[in-house]
Amino acid sequence: MGILDFKLLEEIFPFWKDLTEAEKDEFARNTNLRNYEKGEHIHGGGQNCTGLIGIKRGRLRVYLLSEEGKEVTLFRLLQGDTCILSASCIVKNISFEIQVEAESQMELLIVNPSVYDKIAKENTAASSFMNELISMRFSEAMWIMEQILFMKLDRRLAIFLIEQSSLEESDIIKLTHQEIADHLGSAREVISRMLKYFSGEGMISVSRRGIKLLDREKLMKMM
Amino acid sequence: MGILDFKLLEEIFPFWKDLTEAEKDEFARNTNLRNYEKGEHIHGGGQNCTGLIGIKRGRLRVYLLSEEGKEVTLFRLLQGDTCILSASCIVKNISFEIQVEAESQMELLIVNPSVYDKIAKENTAASSFMNELISMRFSEAMWIMEQILFMKLDRRLAIFLIEQSSLEESDIIKLTHQEIADHLGSAREVISRMLKYFSGEGMISVSRRGIKLLDREKLMKMM
Repeated sequence: MGILDFKLLEEIFPFWKDLTEAEKDEFARNTNLRNYEKGEHIHGGGQNCTGLIGIKRGRLRVYLLSEEGKEVTLFRLLQGDTCILSASCIVKNISFEIQVEAESQMELLIVNPSVYDKIAKENTAASSFMNELISMRFSEAMWIMEQILFMKLDRRLAIFLIEQSSLEESDIIKLTHQEIADHLGSAREVISRMLKYFSGEGMISVSRRGIKLLDREKLMKMM
Repeated sequence: MGILDFKLLEEIFPFWKDLTEAEKDEFARNTNLRNYEKGEHIHGGGQNCTGLIGIKRGRLRVYLLSEEGKEVTLFRLLQGDTCILSASCIVKNISFEIQVEAESQMELLIVNPSVYDKIAKENTAASSFMNELISMRFSEAMWIMEQILFMKLDRRLAIFLIEQSSLEESDIIKLTHQEIADHLGSAREVISRMLKYFSGEGMISVSRRGIKLLDREKLMKMM
């Protein structure tokens, strides 16, 4: 593959305009455009350091995975977003491991971690971007932690359904009860019971086609 | 108060040796040495931005607090440690609030946040320190999050008792069941029940004097 379109790199990486011509050239030569299918694993499950990820198209999920296979979603990233936790080898003191998977067909820009590290060492804009990104993800992770710690599961489920419906731009959420449990770090049985309760209250309907939001207002009141 | 002892500042802040003479002077003039009593609140509960904290002596606890008063401990900091989350106003994208309290009599160095911010903007060593500290706390917080999510409370309690005993350098842990519950983000009744179970298994004894570790080996096996 030839050198990537500079326009695309400029759109995704805010520090692009502050790179020198030589840095731009090196960055572009060490960035790959890759396609992923829905459900495909992008990062995690080993000592690998995939690199700085920029999303050209699609949606990905960043989550924690326990040794026993339990999951919890930390955040979702959309077109134009970037992920640095998939390049933890170049971030001093980051010692936890995340998993990244494609939630739709995706096109990703993957920047070679040592090249980005080298550029960030010479260029303040590139290193500030890295640090600001880490602080942002730290805050997002702490928000999830506060939800898990302090919020009852019925409220968390209501928030998740509303957010998921807006991500999907649809009133129908096509996720299994197990998938919802994995997002929330809960168990399938607990989610099924709570969805049944929501359904009994007329907030949603549950069918083979998925979960349909019927009364958003009532659902919002739970939040 | 006059200018602080440079030797003390050098011991606590690793970037000190890389500051210019003018920066050292400004940093010292804007750092206060303050005493706190055990149990005193140091930071949190408002929009305040206390500053960069360095511990000269004593132990502090950093924790999350819910609107309903539920707590969970994120980490403890000891002599020589520093805390930047108490200066979140100068860290871009940090949007969550932590609480900091003294767990013993303490002497703290508190650096004026805008002065530290100014120095970090001109001095790479000072800004790298800030970024590495944030990544370290991010990792520690994620470790706690994984414990909460993926680990049963009996294992977390066993880990807590062992760690607390080593912090206190004593086999006797002088905390109430409520205090332990606050550390672990649990409820007093649950902790009492579990301590009773540990006690029945001969791992600890519970009396008015506190919780005594009797069989460390067995306790370690729970971890």
